[in-house]
Amino acid sequence: MRVVVIGGGAAGASAAARARRLAPDAEVTLIEASGMITHAPCGVPYALSGLVPSYRMLRTYSPEKFASERGIGVLTNSVAQDVDPDGRTVLVRRNGETVRIKWDALVLATGARPLVPRIEGLEDVRPLTFRHPEDVPGATSRLERVKRVAVIGGGYIGVELAEALVDMGKEVSLFEMMERLLPGPFDPEISRVLEERVRGAGVRVHLSEPVRALSRRSEGVVVNTDSGSYEVDDVVIGVGVRPNVDLALKAGVKLGATGAVETDDLMSTNVDGIFGAGDLVEKYHLVLRKKVWMPLAPAANKEGQVAGANAVSRGSLRMRGIVGTAVTRFKDLYLARTGLGQEEASKNGFDVESTTIVAKTKAGYFPGGVEVTVKMIAERGSGRVLGLQAAGRDPVVAAYADIAAVAIERRMSTEDVFFSDIGYMPATAPVWHPLIVAARTLSKGRF
Amino acid sequence: MRVVVIGGGAAGASAAARARRLAPDAEVTLIEASGMITHAPCGVPYALSGLVPSYRMLRTYSPEKFASERGIGVLTNSVAQDVDPDGRTVLVRRNGETVRIKWDALVLATGARPLVPRIEGLEDVRPLTFRHPEDVPGATSRLERVKRVAVIGGGYIGVELAEALVDMGKEVSLFEMMERLLPGPFDPEISRVLEERVRGAGVRVHLSEPVRALSRRSEGVVVNTDSGSYEVDDVVIGVGVRPNVDLALKAGVKLGATGAVETDDLMSTNVDGIFGAGDLVEKYHLVLRKKVWMPLAPAANKEGQVAGANAVSRGSLRMRGIVGTAVTRFKDLYLARTGLGQEEASKNGFDVESTTIVAKTKAGYFPGGVEVTVKMIAERGSGRVLGLQAAGRDPVVAAYADIAAVAIERRMSTEDVFFSDIGYMPATAPVWHPLIVAARTLSKGRF
Repeated sequence: MRVVVIGGGAAGASAAARARRLAPDAEVTLIEASGMITHAPCGVPYALSGLVPSYRMLRTYSPEKFASERGIGVLTNSVAQDVDPDGRTVLVRRNGETVRIKWDALVLATGARPLVPRIEGLEDVRPLTFRHPEDVPGATSRLERVKRVAVIGGGYIGVELAEALVDMGKEVSLFEMMERLLPGPFDPEISRVLEERVRGAGVRVHLSEPVRALSRRSEGVVVNTDSGSYEVDDVVIGVGVRPNVDLALKAGVKLGATGAVETDDLMSTNVDGIFGAGDLVEKYHLVLRKKVWMPLAPAANKEGQVAGANAVSRGSLRMRGIVGTAVTRFKDLYLARTGLGQEEASKNGFDVESTTIVAKTKAGYFPGGVEVTVKMIAERGSGRVLGLQAAGRDPVVAAYADIAAVAIERRMSTEDVFFSDIGYMPATAPVWHPLIVAARTLSKGRF
Repeated sequence: MRVVVIGGGAAGASAAARARRLAPDAEVTLIEASGMITHAPCGVPYALSGLVPSYRMLRTYSPEKFASERGIGVLTNSVAQDVDPDGRTVLVRRNGETVRIKWDALVLATGARPLVPRIEGLEDVRPLTFRHPEDVPGATSRLERVKRVAVIGGGYIGVELAEALVDMGKEVSLFEMMERLLPGPFDPEISRVLEERVRGAGVRVHLSEPVRALSRRSEGVVVNTDSGSYEVDDVVIGVGVRPNVDLALKAGVKLGATGAVETDDLMSTNVDGIFGAGDLVEKYHLVLRKKVWMPLAPAANKEGQVAGANAVSRGSLRMRGIVGTAVTRFKDLYLARTGLGQEEASKNGFDVESTTIVAKTKAGYFPGGVEVTVKMIAERGSGRVLGLQAAGRDPVVAAYADIAAVAIERRMSTEDVFFSDIGYMPATAPVWHPLIVAARTLSKGRF
């Protein structure tokens, strides 16, 4: 049994490790285009800012250690160029040579790559993009020479890069085409809290201002929007990522409506013997009851586990759906969300109601408590909780989303949440936990 | 409609507020023996240590504000002495007079009082006990004069008082009759983490040493156990609390097997028109499927809501069960638990397995992560999660118990937990969240 995994990130490394563990006799090969495996793209902004001292720390294992401890063949700096699904081979470019590697099961985990929007002058200015830890050293030295940096994109990546740039002492201008920051995952009540914090850190936030053109000048770059022209020294693009489907398409693998690879709950694609996992593939959304594309590491890891298990033992493990839990931060402000946003829920046919409360993270009398803004979204009538979003200067807001994620997965109502046995002590929560207050507020006096 | 609530703590104040809100025409009276209402006994150790600057801060409302804002009659320093369940009156001692107050619905919320163990010499030494914020000022001045303090009891109260005494600069000796700290709520793997931290703070921890006798000397007190005699300056008892059932018994209210007041899910007692709420009453344990007594503030608050609602609108709200979520800390070490401990589960007929893991609170490369010890207990075969316990120098461990509490309430298995959509970003959790690692470890390679 030969298992080949293409892509050494979270999903691919999980798949390889899982296949090896379940089938000690299988020959497992992990093929990675870069020099790193088990790398953590989520850590890139913090390696850029220096909070994490080196980009080399953004990995769990060195290729050598992963290979020797797990008994997996690891080929780094090796680019899979083509897949023959009938002959069951993959063509790999490595050390200037092209080799053909046979597989009985193939796991595609080629991840995502930065989305580059259509902007005039891009080829000339060549803005920085970030996806891989190895992007960091070049960017660091390029940014050392500049002061004023434009960030294009006010989603997760743009906001996290803005934090890094502020920490590097840059003057940051952030451009977002929509009318608020994090417009996809967060509702206006939460985006507003973020915007205040970002502006408070000195970032010039330009909302509803899509960047139309970039033009290089003798010194620096001019960013043109419909509202104005802004002179900066360099430009960073952080508008998001797209699934890296090139190889999948060559293999004849089918994409879903989202543009990412479609799989079943065994992580099998339409091509016999080929599995997909991680940011490359669609996920099943348990509330929307349809496929979505949402590139997040925890699901990628689990999909890798499932793909690796089924690659060697078909039917042994099935992936479950997600509810869209995600966390980010800007400096000391943490933001977390799960389930559906209010607009997203309405668009998808739910009759929704919501409440936004401001609460404290600790008992009122206890030192160190901070304000958190919590928005809960529920289905009118049934009271079924559909979504939760929270922002505050305490990482505990991530846990609020975690608790709500489990509640949403289990189709709990606001009354169920109100009566759930969430713990209390004055140093960790108010006696009426913010989630319980939100659920009670939504009940409009029923409890 | 006249609603009388006896006891102005969490449960009583909730009941009064709820009754008033649902029945604007009702006459609601709250009777409290002390001078404070909406007081927070959980904050007492922190007012003692000075972390909370004044014991007066340990309340949400002043009696005057609660009365005027809510339209509730508040009688403080008023002791309910007897209840006539047939004539529907309560006899109250107030300002040197005894008054008879009529009720159509009566909510008993008399809470709990410190348990004082049988120890020789108690009457002579008169150790300090703590239950009410008003206990703080007297204790503070008494403790100002002493250096060496013995704490009797290594449960929640004893450990939290030990923290306060250490913070006050005392030399603390702690005596626990069982073989570990927090022997009721926590298993040995977690108690051990606490013990190390408590000893590290300079507390002399005496385990398996029940205190047999106290004797006053010209200077200080001698504490006698089976293993030795220890000279100290003063003694604090923190062995726990018992339900304050005296008035309930006078009213003919039935107690359950736990010794606390028995109610149904409307919080009705056996006596028509009399409700019970808070530390006075038993709770239904959803995993054990039986009544237990566990005095914790969040349940007390909710029971108050339910009792208050049913006092004015019978059948309008039903209390749910608990799963025993609780949180404590000793200085920077936080401990949280939910569900059943391993021994507790075995004793109650569950065939259990467990795992104890050590994980980090953040991504490995991210600064500021700390080690957490997490124990998960599950039913063998079904994989149903029965309990979770965690300890670490980060308040996030409380959230681990909260997430697990919801999972346990919803009868989730380790596989359900593994696949639940718990969020991730490097500053708030590792990509494999400690709960997910624990669930996976318990699966023994199945996922």
